[in-house]
Amino acid sequence: MNRKHMTGGDALVSALADEKVGVCFANPGTTELDLVRSLEREERIRCVIGLQENVCTGGADGYGRMTGRPSATLLHLGPGFANGIANLHNARRAHTPIVNLIGDHTTWHLPYDAPLTSDIESLARPVSGWVHRIGAVEQSDAVAREAVKRSLSGGGQGATLIVPADFQAQPAGEQVPLILPASEGKPSVRSDFNADAAVQRLKKAGRIVFLLGGGGELSGLGARAQKAVQRICTALGASAFAETFPSRSERGQGLPAFDRLPYFPEPARDVLDPADLVVLVGALPPVTYFGYEGHPSLLVTSDRLLTLAEVGEDAAERLESVARLLGAGEAEAPAVTLSPPEDGPLTPARIALALANELPAQAIVSVEGGTCGYPFYAASAGARPHTTLTNTGGAIGQGLPVAMGAAVACPDRKVVALLSDGSTQYTIQTLWSLAHEDLDVLVLIAANHQYAILRNELRRGGAELGRRAAEMTSLENPCIDWVMLAGSYGVPGGRASTTAELLALLRQGFSTRGPMLIEMAL
Amino acid sequence: MNRKHMTGGDALVSALADEKVGVCFANPGTTELDLVRSLEREERIRCVIGLQENVCTGGADGYGRMTGRPSATLLHLGPGFANGIANLHNARRAHTPIVNLIGDHTTWHLPYDAPLTSDIESLARPVSGWVHRIGAVEQSDAVAREAVKRSLSGGGQGATLIVPADFQAQPAGEQVPLILPASEGKPSVRSDFNADAAVQRLKKAGRIVFLLGGGGELSGLGARAQKAVQRICTALGASAFAETFPSRSERGQGLPAFDRLPYFPEPARDVLDPADLVVLVGALPPVTYFGYEGHPSLLVTSDRLLTLAEVGEDAAERLESVARLLGAGEAEAPAVTLSPPEDGPLTPARIALALANELPAQAIVSVEGGTCGYPFYAASAGARPHTTLTNTGGAIGQGLPVAMGAAVACPDRKVVALLSDGSTQYTIQTLWSLAHEDLDVLVLIAANHQYAILRNELRRGGAELGRRAAEMTSLENPCIDWVMLAGSYGVPGGRASTTAELLALLRQGFSTRGPMLIEMAL
Repeated sequence: MNRKHMTGGDALVSALADEKVGVCFANPGTTELDLVRSLEREERIRCVIGLQENVCTGGADGYGRMTGRPSATLLHLGPGFANGIANLHNARRAHTPIVNLIGDHTTWHLPYDAPLTSDIESLARPVSGWVHRIGAVEQSDAVAREAVKRSLSGGGQGATLIVPADFQAQPAGEQVPLILPASEGKPSVRSDFNADAAVQRLKKAGRIVFLLGGGGELSGLGARAQKAVQRICTALGASAFAETFPSRSERGQGLPAFDRLPYFPEPARDVLDPADLVVLVGALPPVTYFGYEGHPSLLVTSDRLLTLAEVGEDAAERLESVARLLGAGEAEAPAVTLSPPEDGPLTPARIALALANELPAQAIVSVEGGTCGYPFYAASAGARPHTTLTNTGGAIGQGLPVAMGAAVACPDRKVVALLSDGSTQYTIQTLWSLAHEDLDVLVLIAANHQYAILRNELRRGGAELGRRAAEMTSLENPCIDWVMLAGSYGVPGGRASTTAELLALLRQGFSTRGPMLIEMAL
Repeated sequence: MNRKHMTGGDALVSALADEKVGVCFANPGTTELDLVRSLEREERIRCVIGLQENVCTGGADGYGRMTGRPSATLLHLGPGFANGIANLHNARRAHTPIVNLIGDHTTWHLPYDAPLTSDIESLARPVSGWVHRIGAVEQSDAVAREAVKRSLSGGGQGATLIVPADFQAQPAGEQVPLILPASEGKPSVRSDFNADAAVQRLKKAGRIVFLLGGGGELSGLGARAQKAVQRICTALGASAFAETFPSRSERGQGLPAFDRLPYFPEPARDVLDPADLVVLVGALPPVTYFGYEGHPSLLVTSDRLLTLAEVGEDAAERLESVARLLGAGEAEAPAVTLSPPEDGPLTPARIALALANELPAQAIVSVEGGTCGYPFYAASAGARPHTTLTNTGGAIGQGLPVAMGAAVACPDRKVVALLSDGSTQYTIQTLWSLAHEDLDVLVLIAANHQYAILRNELRRGGAELGRRAAEMTSLENPCIDWVMLAGSYGVPGGRASTTAELLALLRQGFSTRGPMLIEMAL
């Protein structure tokens, strides 16, 4: 469009499109309407509407994990943004690039403390690598470009732009560059790496455990890196584990069957305590999920840690050079036998095997919830090659929107959301967006009608579950009817109580396109 | 229980119960499990579970509005708290007392930046009058008591306690008093009031408009205050309006039929511009909802404002003394004729009249959404006496949880939630809690399958609605099936397309107890 007639909103949106931001996950309100008008004119950006903001931010997380590129979110002032914080927390832990656009009151209206006024910066900072409030309409273009750049720095992060309504609507005028305080600069990740030194240390170490961090194709859990780690492990007699909650990992036939580092401290320590050296490949030093009495928080002290690649660095290349220097031979991933599931009433193990057997090649599996998540990860080594996305930050309500975002990013791949009933409720409105966008997502709900993880924690150490504690972790009375719930949002579904029923529904889901939900009765 | 065997969690929960906190709206996680164990032992506190945190905080808002007393919320670390911020924003604008309990990581685990670690204080401050992190288990009792006190100060506010997991579990030990920095003290509201001076100013003024703020029984929209205002208006030839979004107001037969101050600036200015004096009775100075070009933010300058009572002060007593000094006579509220609704396809006006006609005495009506909210307020002057709760802060997804909290607070009163479809989606999980607790709430959904408020704003000034703007404000394709949705959560429902159908369903809903939903097709 003619730049002379551009508004600030137009300049901002157009700059995002120039920077290849192609999707905006949006839940706008009145203070974003001039950005809506600008999006009306910017055909290069696809708008995906969520009925609640955590759907949008989770969608942006899934999209960014699969593409390595930021999408935008469009959120309404402080309270609207707040609704999306939980999934931005997960996205921060996944190092996902995202550009958040928050409309704020017109600048001159802010001092009057109108009903929707709040301290947006205070809300945004905990989940943003960069927070910036646009101070002049002439900077709309530069600020948008800077936000994209920031979202991609530090291995990937949230860049949050607060855009007062007046600057969205005013004529953009002559655009000027953005001059930022020096303190705002943050260098991209780039650790020193000396392959020879690393190899020397590996050769000298006794028992070695590799800990692989997830991310893009070049991460520790990309296919190339996993294959190189397998060669190294064979050469050194070492073992390797995926981090417990990878943002993205490749998995299945043709890849080594690395386990995930266990969640609870006891089995995690069984893996790590005997190690003389723990090699971090795009993974953070292992820390227990919560503080557990009698266990250290940091499971491996720094003298036993070797960082081969930081998050966001090219782990594949580093591992391949280490393998080369070690003279490690080529290693075929041993074929993993995948048994068929036993028939009978559904159990997590049967669900895991059924899904692993039926999963089509190149599927994306968004996993949330422990009930089926752990058994599926074990079984999935023998499945056709696929990509797994997990809950990186522990804020639940992540699995379904991340699946949605992955489906927007990869329209040619089947997406499976393998979820627990408790966590899925937090962002249940995602179902509508799946139907509205006709996204190819098969939603599997493990319906045990309880917060099982909390009951497991309450029972740790052999304690009995008290009456009220049982009530406070129950999703019964009434049990949610998931098939009816999906149907109300226009998503067809079915219920399975046995392996045979599940297999039949899985085959139906994998042979058709579009959203579908299966309630798996446990 | 024997204080010798108390944990910090026990001491905290027991102190809350001592301070008459009788309800906890809870969505706990692992870092709150020792508080769950303490609640197991504290029978004086009723726990109401929400499947998402904004259900809990909205519930606490509704409860506090109806009782004037704080309930507790129990939320999981930063991300869980973040999910509840939007309704805490509304609660802050409603001056509702609430005590938020947030579990955090065990103190010694915090430095390790585990997945769920975040800056809770930064998230909590924008919606809390007081934020305090427990620093020693010996202060558990004192901190809980202080939180209740803080929640009741300043006219009512959020008091947020961050409770590290270790302090929940450790032996409570000898409890010690809490010594706070002087800067943390905040005096309760108490404005100077000189009835004689106020009366002199009223007598001298020409055109007078009273602006009445909502709240408890003694607020500007309690029954006593409204009757006193009516006497004063008759004596002075003044007029009176309710603030646009009162937290709580009494309404119906026997009370004066005061309008609400209009939402958009043009009609609001038609009311306020001609006034020589605007008298604030527990209302804030009128500010436009958003900044509108060509309109001032502050609609009445301070020279034309007279504050008769601040929020939280006893407005009824002050108004009665003013009425007495003016020699104002008793005034019967003129009987308002309530027409029956016309039959035919449903319209907002017909819905409003149908509800106003059928509403039982002493009902509580939680209103969210403009589609039916404004017409109902107009019609409700002729309904049986009832209480209205509105969305005070503009963060949508408030109406249903507030109705839930009001039903918990007032089990003997029928609660009606008069809602729009767009806003109800944000906290749709509330339906499960209504069924789980068998709460007596009749949910009315005005289903126009669009964000009508945004379309109205987009069309302001005669603009056409563009194709993508229409898409971004549409809830169609698919239209949500609200009856099926309610059924999936165990809430029975029905659909009405005509006045006759709605009347039949309303009569059914009002003649039975327990939750029910009516989809009103528009």
